[in-house]
Amino acid sequence: MSEIRQDQATKRWVIMATERAKRPRDLAATVSTTEPEPEYSPDCPFCPGNESKTPPEVLAYREGDGPADSPGWQVRVVPNAFPALRPDGEVVVSQPHWFTSVTGVGAHEVIVESPVHNDSPATVSVEHIGLVLQAAAERFMALQQDRRLCYVALFRNNGLAAGSSLTHPHTQIIATPIAPTSVRLEIEAARQHYDDRIHCVYCETIQNELDAGQRIVLETDAFVVLEPFASRWPFETWLIPKQHAAVLTPGDASPVEPLARALRTTLNALYHALGDPAYNLVLHEAPLRDSCEDYYHWHIEILPRLATAAGFELGTGIWINSVLPEESAEYLRDFVSA
Amino acid sequence: MSEIRQDQATKRWVIMATERAKRPRDLAATVSTTEPEPEYSPDCPFCPGNESKTPPEVLAYREGDGPADSPGWQVRVVPNAFPALRPDGEVVVSQPHWFTSVTGVGAHEVIVESPVHNDSPATVSVEHIGLVLQAAAERFMALQQDRRLCYVALFRNNGLAAGSSLTHPHTQIIATPIAPTSVRLEIEAARQHYDDRIHCVYCETIQNELDAGQRIVLETDAFVVLEPFASRWPFETWLIPKQHAAVLTPGDASPVEPLARALRTTLNALYHALGDPAYNLVLHEAPLRDSCEDYYHWHIEILPRLATAAGFELGTGIWINSVLPEESAEYLRDFVSA
Repeated sequence: MSEIRQDQATKRWVIMATERAKRPRDLAATVSTTEPEPEYSPDCPFCPGNESKTPPEVLAYREGDGPADSPGWQVRVVPNAFPALRPDGEVVVSQPHWFTSVTGVGAHEVIVESPVHNDSPATVSVEHIGLVLQAAAERFMALQQDRRLCYVALFRNNGLAAGSSLTHPHTQIIATPIAPTSVRLEIEAARQHYDDRIHCVYCETIQNELDAGQRIVLETDAFVVLEPFASRWPFETWLIPKQHAAVLTPGDASPVEPLARALRTTLNALYHALGDPAYNLVLHEAPLRDSCEDYYHWHIEILPRLATAAGFELGTGIWINSVLPEESAEYLRDFVSA
Repeated sequence: MSEIRQDQATKRWVIMATERAKRPRDLAATVSTTEPEPEYSPDCPFCPGNESKTPPEVLAYREGDGPADSPGWQVRVVPNAFPALRPDGEVVVSQPHWFTSVTGVGAHEVIVESPVHNDSPATVSVEHIGLVLQAAAERFMALQQDRRLCYVALFRNNGLAAGSSLTHPHTQIIATPIAPTSVRLEIEAARQHYDDRIHCVYCETIQNELDAGQRIVLETDAFVVLEPFASRWPFETWLIPKQHAAVLTPGDASPVEPLARALRTTLNALYHALGDPAYNLVLHEAPLRDSCEDYYHWHIEILPRLATAAGFELGTGIWINSVLPEESAEYLRDFVSA
């Protein structure tokens, strides 16, 4: 008989469909979407030498003192050429008799993670991931100054099945003038848990998962990486800091090395376990100027796209997962190298 | 500048990304996933003659008096061979110190809509869709008697991109012993609206959309079909009954012809406008024995899978849509035939 599990943090339900269970290694064989990519692609707007194909950079780390928008960078941040939101203009709320809308003010930026077209965060050095995180932190700190903005989202789409059309390694930032509905729901659920139990639900999750042991992928001094008890997708993987905090970037640059190391180990394990799977990686943290420090806890969710959300999932919010997180965690642990 | 729209019913936000806008007819050219299928496929478990490849039928409509699980049926309902949930056993809630789960008791059935392997609800007769709806209503009425169950979901996945692995036309029913989180949220939002305004948010939506006119695809005596103001996906299409009711199947068989006709016209328009697109169709209605008659309003949502939800959507619940519903509605209206 299958089992319906509830996520403690969000109260979300997931059906662990053992009747249609797949073994982790069966998935690995079927999901590789990788076609070999060259180190340099002349048509790629993110490759060095093509800097004019993007809007002017807002940040870049260069080893020498080269001019902006020229080669020589290690990490480069540019506005998205087809932005969902733009930084100019005022936030105007339109609320006539019925239909509510807000002007599309915000930011949509791309962190080009490497000059090498076929690099992957799963295989680059920890130091290089640190550079990418530092660039993200710098942009977060800049965007947080903008009082028109309410939320800054950081996410990475890897592979076509995860909605990425460009293969050159990149991460995106979208800053919105409105609070995301699902962020609000997640924080509200965390607040209810805190009011009920006087403990952060994520802190309690870490402790209970460490005690249980079955779903832990990696534990470092600073982070726990686990397959959540109510994983929605096969190989859903969360990276949770042991240190309780509502946001990753509290305004000053925190040391990035521990996160870079945990992230690199996790992505490397997924890469080798599943053959460079399509995935979405999303930072979950509190909205700007929203003080929920006691009860919310930032974390990173990695969602491999090994299955397609269909009508049942989209209509009910209940997920069906064919791989037990205990099994995917055990499988992943074999790919975790020190 | 793009525009961020809010759905009145759910308070969900959608970025209408005019910067990356696509014309409706450009989508039509790129999304066809149809490969010609034969009328009969010897390996298909849903084709006539292969009845033994499915679990024994729970309902079938035959013109003659043929035995169960033999050819001659027009519509046939069988348990899913790889069910997410099973009807045997008790609903046992397990709540040890931390991890919450429920036994996977419920139902997972397949309505095989036609004996013809390559039929489509977009092109079959209205009478035949009526038969499928009647079968669904019969199964709903049977499942509603089971006090272990809390919700009955009806959905249709069309095409691989919508999560369907079998091309033979079919609709699915999953009945769960727990209330779906997103159904609860939708109903709670409707209740808040009702308490604020003493009107059902869906009734008000119908009236305001008819007044605006721009997003209406079809109006019949009984139904309004529209592209919602805050459409998440290109060509998201809702079918809302004019008659306020919280559930489609209140326990006795209601006349199915008006719904069959509206549904067939809508699916036919999408089929010809977009070239048999992948889509999910989901019935939204109240949970069993949950009396929210004043403020909730059943409806059907059709979600063409012309875009991939990526990290931003999955992490924030904010959607980015590149096609304005005003434009998709105008385009679809050209494909609505009487």
